[in-house]
Amino acid sequence: MILIGERINAGFKDIARAIREHDPEPIREWARKQAAAGADYIDVNIGAASKDPADMAWLIRVVQEAVPTPISVDSNRPEVLRAGLEALDGRPALVNSTTADDDKLAEIIPLAVEYGAGLIGVAMDQRGSPQDVERRVENGAKIFLAATEAGLPPERIFLDPVLMPIRFMQDQAVKVLEAIREYTLLSDPPPHISVGLSNICSKTKERSLITRTFVVMAMAAGLDAAICNVLDEELMAAVATAEVILNKEIYSDDFLRVWALKRSKGGE
Amino acid sequence: MILIGERINAGFKDIARAIREHDPEPIREWARKQAAAGADYIDVNIGAASKDPADMAWLIRVVQEAVPTPISVDSNRPEVLRAGLEALDGRPALVNSTTADDDKLAEIIPLAVEYGAGLIGVAMDQRGSPQDVERRVENGAKIFLAATEAGLPPERIFLDPVLMPIRFMQDQAVKVLEAIREYTLLSDPPPHISVGLSNICSKTKERSLITRTFVVMAMAAGLDAAICNVLDEELMAAVATAEVILNKEIYSDDFLRVWALKRSKGGE
Repeated sequence: MILIGERINAGFKDIARAIREHDPEPIREWARKQAAAGADYIDVNIGAASKDPADMAWLIRVVQEAVPTPISVDSNRPEVLRAGLEALDGRPALVNSTTADDDKLAEIIPLAVEYGAGLIGVAMDQRGSPQDVERRVENGAKIFLAATEAGLPPERIFLDPVLMPIRFMQDQAVKVLEAIREYTLLSDPPPHISVGLSNICSKTKERSLITRTFVVMAMAAGLDAAICNVLDEELMAAVATAEVILNKEIYSDDFLRVWALKRSKGGE
Repeated sequence: MILIGERINAGFKDIARAIREHDPEPIREWARKQAAAGADYIDVNIGAASKDPADMAWLIRVVQEAVPTPISVDSNRPEVLRAGLEALDGRPALVNSTTADDDKLAEIIPLAVEYGAGLIGVAMDQRGSPQDVERRVENGAKIFLAATEAGLPPERIFLDPVLMPIRFMQDQAVKVLEAIREYTLLSDPPPHISVGLSNICSKTKERSLITRTFVVMAMAAGLDAAICNVLDEELMAAVATAEVILNKEIYSDDFLRVWALKRSKGGE
């Protein structure tokens, strides 16, 4: 499972403040915590805190100085993505993200190619978020085809079927599971499949329980990546256990400890 | 989800003793506890504690006097099954279980028909437990066909793809998930699909975590019944959450409380 730490995002107030004031300390701390918890990538998103591409570059540099972990450069604005990618020190990275819209594909796929990065493609389009399996598959396949034609191999393509809050759209989770199964059939090997995991538990009282219950279902369907709260220990235990049940990590009586140990090495 | 409480089984020492000494108290207590926890059926198994069909009849009567919950009469011996079914007071029941062997099918399916009970068919045969998806599907389909031909509708047939301990056969859980998906395609509506859930965590240190992680994966694949530890509160919370995610129970902020309340009513 490829875990992308969600916490350096201006949707969180402490991060928004740190970006506005160019205060590196909270950024460093969240980078270190997420790396130690086993994040494979640290997502970096300036959100609404700034429209200045230079702020993304600053943020990327702060994270890079704190940890050796690969970075997911997260913005819906191509100029911000480019500034972040340009600031990278050569470590592996993800471009997060393109939608299925032609103009986005035309601008953002070349960034992933140029900077040797992976690409997250979210199955949305100008009509908004998909409400059914078909739109998810159609948009995912369109992104996959465009990225493949631009030269990205399946292992650098991450498709995101758009997970929605269970509290407001209860029927959508099943459709996401079905779309995940469809994505696994796109090619052999298939592309990676990722979701913004915390979306599902938005405004609920049982955030961790809902999140970890969904993620193991999604892993059984073919999910192999997630932007998520890597500091949620119960979520991490569920992911580790799902990997053992799916025979992707070897069982041992201490598999939880072994899994955490293997992962935290990446954060040292 | 149809939950079958596993605890009245002579595999547990207190139950074995109670059967040998005809002490009704521990039996009553486990019946009440499991009913209060929301069991849809109470499984009743004399196991190796006795070969006397009269002991099964006694056990069934004790459970019936304690709770109004339907009963799963559990034995691999037709004469013991018959004695248990004969002792029933008319409440719904399951015959647990037949295998795919011709002689078992010929003896046990007629019992389910005669006593108006559901039937659990375990996808084993004289060669032992299935090790691959194909044998599970073949044996499951054979049981389904034989039961259907004998007049049982799909809603009275429960197929069990044979769950095995992750500690000793780590590759089997994925095959069980795949077999569950195949079983859902046998008919429309499909038969029920059930597992002996506690098998997966046998001799592990993380019994509840492994069990609840597997069950939500299996529910997403189509599992709708399980013989399990209904007193495991974390397992019950996982099942409730999975039902909400799969859009089979309505989401509310207090869905866990609502779910537990609905279920415990059955035990009053």
